[in-house]
Amino acid sequence: MSSHETRPCVPDLKKERLKCDFNVEELTNLIDGGKEKTALRRKLRSVISSESAYIDPIPPEYMSHEDQFSNELRKTCHTAMLMNKQNIDIKTLQLSKAYIGVLKDGDPLWVHYHVFIPSITGQSDPEQQKIWMEKIRTWKIFGTYAQTELGHGTFLRGLETTATYDRETREFILNSPTITATKWWPGGLGHTVNFAAVMAQLYVGGKCYGPHMFMVQLRDENTHESLPGVTLGEIGPRFGLNTNGNGFLRFDHYRIPRRNMLMKHAQVLEDGTYVKPSHSKLSYGTMVRVRVGIVRDTCIQLQQAVTIATRYSAVRHQSELIPGEPEPQILDYQTQQFKILPQISSVFALFFAANSVIDAYYSVTAQMDLGDMSLLPELHALSSGLKALSASDASRGVEICRLSCGGHGYLASSNFPRLYTQTTCAITYEGENTVLWLQVARYIIKSYRSAQNGNNLKHSVSYLSKQPRPVRGDLSNNGLLEAFKAAVFKLVSDTEGRIQRVCAKGQNYHMAWNQCSLQLLKCAEAHTRFYVCEQFVRKVEMAKGTENVKKILKNLCRLYLTHHVSVNSGDFLKSGSLSQNDIAVLEEEMCSLLEVLRPQAVSIVDAFDFDDGQLNSCLGCWDGDVYQRLYDEALKSPLNKTDVPEAYYKYLRPLMQVGLKSSL
Amino acid sequence: MSSHETRPCVPDLKKERLKCDFNVEELTNLIDGGKEKTALRRKLRSVISSESAYIDPIPPEYMSHEDQFSNELRKTCHTAMLMNKQNIDIKTLQLSKAYIGVLKDGDPLWVHYHVFIPSITGQSDPEQQKIWMEKIRTWKIFGTYAQTELGHGTFLRGLETTATYDRETREFILNSPTITATKWWPGGLGHTVNFAAVMAQLYVGGKCYGPHMFMVQLRDENTHESLPGVTLGEIGPRFGLNTNGNGFLRFDHYRIPRRNMLMKHAQVLEDGTYVKPSHSKLSYGTMVRVRVGIVRDTCIQLQQAVTIATRYSAVRHQSELIPGEPEPQILDYQTQQFKILPQISSVFALFFAANSVIDAYYSVTAQMDLGDMSLLPELHALSSGLKALSASDASRGVEICRLSCGGHGYLASSNFPRLYTQTTCAITYEGENTVLWLQVARYIIKSYRSAQNGNNLKHSVSYLSKQPRPVRGDLSNNGLLEAFKAAVFKLVSDTEGRIQRVCAKGQNYHMAWNQCSLQLLKCAEAHTRFYVCEQFVRKVEMAKGTENVKKILKNLCRLYLTHHVSVNSGDFLKSGSLSQNDIAVLEEEMCSLLEVLRPQAVSIVDAFDFDDGQLNSCLGCWDGDVYQRLYDEALKSPLNKTDVPEAYYKYLRPLMQVGLKSSL
Repeated sequence: MSSHETRPCVPDLKKERLKCDFNVEELTNLIDGGKEKTALRRKLRSVISSESAYIDPIPPEYMSHEDQFSNELRKTCHTAMLMNKQNIDIKTLQLSKAYIGVLKDGDPLWVHYHVFIPSITGQSDPEQQKIWMEKIRTWKIFGTYAQTELGHGTFLRGLETTATYDRETREFILNSPTITATKWWPGGLGHTVNFAAVMAQLYVGGKCYGPHMFMVQLRDENTHESLPGVTLGEIGPRFGLNTNGNGFLRFDHYRIPRRNMLMKHAQVLEDGTYVKPSHSKLSYGTMVRVRVGIVRDTCIQLQQAVTIATRYSAVRHQSELIPGEPEPQILDYQTQQFKILPQISSVFALFFAANSVIDAYYSVTAQMDLGDMSLLPELHALSSGLKALSASDASRGVEICRLSCGGHGYLASSNFPRLYTQTTCAITYEGENTVLWLQVARYIIKSYRSAQNGNNLKHSVSYLSKQPRPVRGDLSNNGLLEAFKAAVFKLVSDTEGRIQRVCAKGQNYHMAWNQCSLQLLKCAEAHTRFYVCEQFVRKVEMAKGTENVKKILKNLCRLYLTHHVSVNSGDFLKSGSLSQNDIAVLEEEMCSLLEVLRPQAVSIVDAFDFDDGQLNSCLGCWDGDVYQRLYDEALKSPLNKTDVPEAYYKYLRPLMQVGLKSSL
Repeated sequence: MSSHETRPCVPDLKKERLKCDFNVEELTNLIDGGKEKTALRRKLRSVISSESAYIDPIPPEYMSHEDQFSNELRKTCHTAMLMNKQNIDIKTLQLSKAYIGVLKDGDPLWVHYHVFIPSITGQSDPEQQKIWMEKIRTWKIFGTYAQTELGHGTFLRGLETTATYDRETREFILNSPTITATKWWPGGLGHTVNFAAVMAQLYVGGKCYGPHMFMVQLRDENTHESLPGVTLGEIGPRFGLNTNGNGFLRFDHYRIPRRNMLMKHAQVLEDGTYVKPSHSKLSYGTMVRVRVGIVRDTCIQLQQAVTIATRYSAVRHQSELIPGEPEPQILDYQTQQFKILPQISSVFALFFAANSVIDAYYSVTAQMDLGDMSLLPELHALSSGLKALSASDASRGVEICRLSCGGHGYLASSNFPRLYTQTTCAITYEGENTVLWLQVARYIIKSYRSAQNGNNLKHSVSYLSKQPRPVRGDLSNNGLLEAFKAAVFKLVSDTEGRIQRVCAKGQNYHMAWNQCSLQLLKCAEAHTRFYVCEQFVRKVEMAKGTENVKKILKNLCRLYLTHHVSVNSGDFLKSGSLSQNDIAVLEEEMCSLLEVLRPQAVSIVDAFDFDDGQLNSCLGCWDGDVYQRLYDEALKSPLNKTDVPEAYYKYLRPLMQVGLKSSL
């Protein structure tokens, strides 16, 4: 049984929890990936929870920008010490749900562990690794990954920072020739790290060899002062994640030794000879891993948001269902159920889809180790699509949850503001969504054409081989998946046809592609949505466990399917895969599912197993004592320390003492 | 000509401005409501711009919560003095675009001018008015409007604060019996105002007469100290609008004189006799005015967002359209055009619809003065629907604009974070959107039924009288409006039919209503969308001016229509009002319109006529010198004042000096 099931709560939540008809702990285990993983997570959490160092001296909202940064750096350094003492792998901890809630608004060392170290291990040769990894292991080097520039995003070719080889001194000269060449955004770069893996255009003997990576020392290892030729700083406050230490970096003809170029793949020899890498797809693995990580993170953020919204919706009473009767729990309104339950189903959909892509990742990696790269494009398309879909679904979902809580969701003490700002950034980073959707579309169109030419397609796009013919009126899960296939097929074939028509009018292919890109986005999203639906159906079919837990999963899956049919009804009607009547029937079923799931809602989110410290929300606390918490939290405001604020004496009183003419 | 057309700008923007094929100033006049109004706005703006008091000493992002509040109170008090000196009406100023940008994150006196004063003038009797308005005029009284409570939102019946008449002393005793009865949210309540118009349940002789309004002194007029029996404070930090001074208020058996009940309508006589108000619809006028004000505000916020996004999209170069060619302006990507241009068309759609509702408001008010209340429900439905639609469209639009700017849109220095947090709150306040949509639905269903019974309907819903029969294949503006009518009619008749079916199965009407409420939301939104489309078409038809400006308006209107047909294609297909082929044709037309409008985009947003101080955005500045501004703005961060931060010595260095075991 879950550890928290005996704690007291307000009658409304008690009533909800008594309705629970499934084993909450079993669902928790399923989400964690097994009993042992639940146990491990809880053990980690208990280590974390007992550390007084993780308690903020005052709510960070009231700290200055500098103090917020300092406070989070304090905690992340404490984590390093603690994990070292306890012999716990820090990356495992950071990726565990157990660590949620410790850092409030970003971790200045996250990029060090999750991007910098993998870059060094993945791209430097054995000799380089030996030197640098020793220093990383002993905490002499903290690094970041410096790729994006003020004027340049993910498009590598556009980078302006140069690394010019000087054969005389056997050094590279790093330079930022323009303001737009300033490295901009890397986490921790501002004032935390002393090294960076820097992406720069390699020049040897006047020739440009494109972007390559360099290990660059930025600060003195003893004094932490920035080195001559290097200009460093932070990029200023943001929507959220203000303690990530995002920074900027400029080079003024800054020299580094030749061997600071990461040389596992490409090399520059002493005499300036450039040695090409054997093949170029080697860094895809990291990219896929990072993107699947984003799916997982956004899924957890959505879990937090929907836990808060569900509990508060059970506690909050408002207006009237039947005139004159007492105000009902707002969770009894269909409109409220529709805000919340589809988000719960999204959590499971994203969770299962992420697991599928992780499985695919391992099998593709195994194939690649055998030299077979043929599965990589499919994996790339799946992980890109899923990253884009999860980032936008979860961002929208978190906002829907916030808005479902009325005005109080706007309070910092609800924790929704931070949850939103920390989720929405996933739309932009690690491959901006629109860019990723168009890459997915490229894979889809290529596959479709390949099938037209008689070739076999990879599994996830095999339905594009020939016009699917769904059985009319089959509204079972499998029937709906067939309808999905037909709808996506229609979108893809229409779009491909339109590209051809535009080209036939004499338009350049690339311009035709641009002119059809709205439709291409639709194809990419519809294909990915189908994939997520399919994985949801399959994983629920295969799920082991008690009937009652399986029933919850089945209902959530069915809600997900009917909801997305309803949202995209136009596509189904256009393809003829569902009739108007089918859609009406499915929409009625969706409404029934809301009613069926509603009594289990609180217990389902309980199964996500966050403690109050992790949710950090007055609205989402386990015991439902929402209003007292909101009030107590408000009292912490420094403005509430005095009855009459300084500003009154300075500004309001002088005004009240004048009062000459009409101010109406 | 516009005052700014001669200022220098970067080549990309110069090129865009040279493409302009219409008179920008003419469009500016149209948006302002005439040449004179443009001149007045610019005159006001020049008064504002020359005031050094409005310059923030440091960017407010770096100030503490208290200092931010103090800084904005300083500016709002300065405004009162200045307007008094210049003999300018302060409400006019606050509602003018000229005042945009002065207050960065909320005005602690806004509620005083826009809700408190109208409440006093609208609900107190002549004698009360005389006393209080004199004090308000001479700045002795600053007030707020205290209705919502910690546990209670817009549902008046749920309020818990009591006002019990004590016949002995001829006083009302105000009390907050529970924690949930705490007044919560009123702007300025925290530490700014000294009075409040308080909504409380009136009790006389043990009987409850429901919510009534009372004029309540909260703080001493000379010392500003809160009075005994009153507990005041601010409710803590929020997603945005942190300087609104939103506060809480509790009463502990706090006594006020009998005549502090606002007695224009209802009265309690000395002996405790309760005198009922003559009719209950009198406060609708204020509600309508406030809601139309929200439409206007969100429309201006969307103007700001889309100005920033459009200019930056012309300056920013990224990736490639044609392999190997230079990076194009991102405005050349269809996907980018689709993020931005529909937002520009939304600005005009909301603008014209708001004007229509304002016209309706004046004619309904005139009718009401003659005692005819019959037009009020229609006006209420229109203004409610338009508030809900504009709040959600503008919020979504601002976010789309932010996301269209990539990572830099996430920076505070883009001003998008504040624009979003200040727009999204409109979804919740002054009638939460879901609640409003259901009120609109109630009006629609009532109208539909009334027509079924042979009654005539009001103009805006007259198409619900009988099944519209649009001409197949007529894709003109009027043809599309007919198709819209048919689609909404189908939604409404299906929904009404479903309510009846649920009731026929024995379900209580109110429960049936709840079970159909998702469909009801759709009806309400579709009806309001139709209204907005119709007003857009009509206003453009009637627009006076040069052909080129009219062409811009026509194209924007057409983009709005085709876009919303595309988004709701399922509804059109279901109603049979448009065929699959029609929709494909319209979607192609929409793409062509993006291309047609793209060269005019920068000039259209120039016509919104914001200066850089108002946009307050490094990305949106007139001259397009985006990157230098971002860099310079970052340098203002206090963290950038030192090379090595304090936090290094305190946390990072000790860690680096330990470095015992592996931290990998």
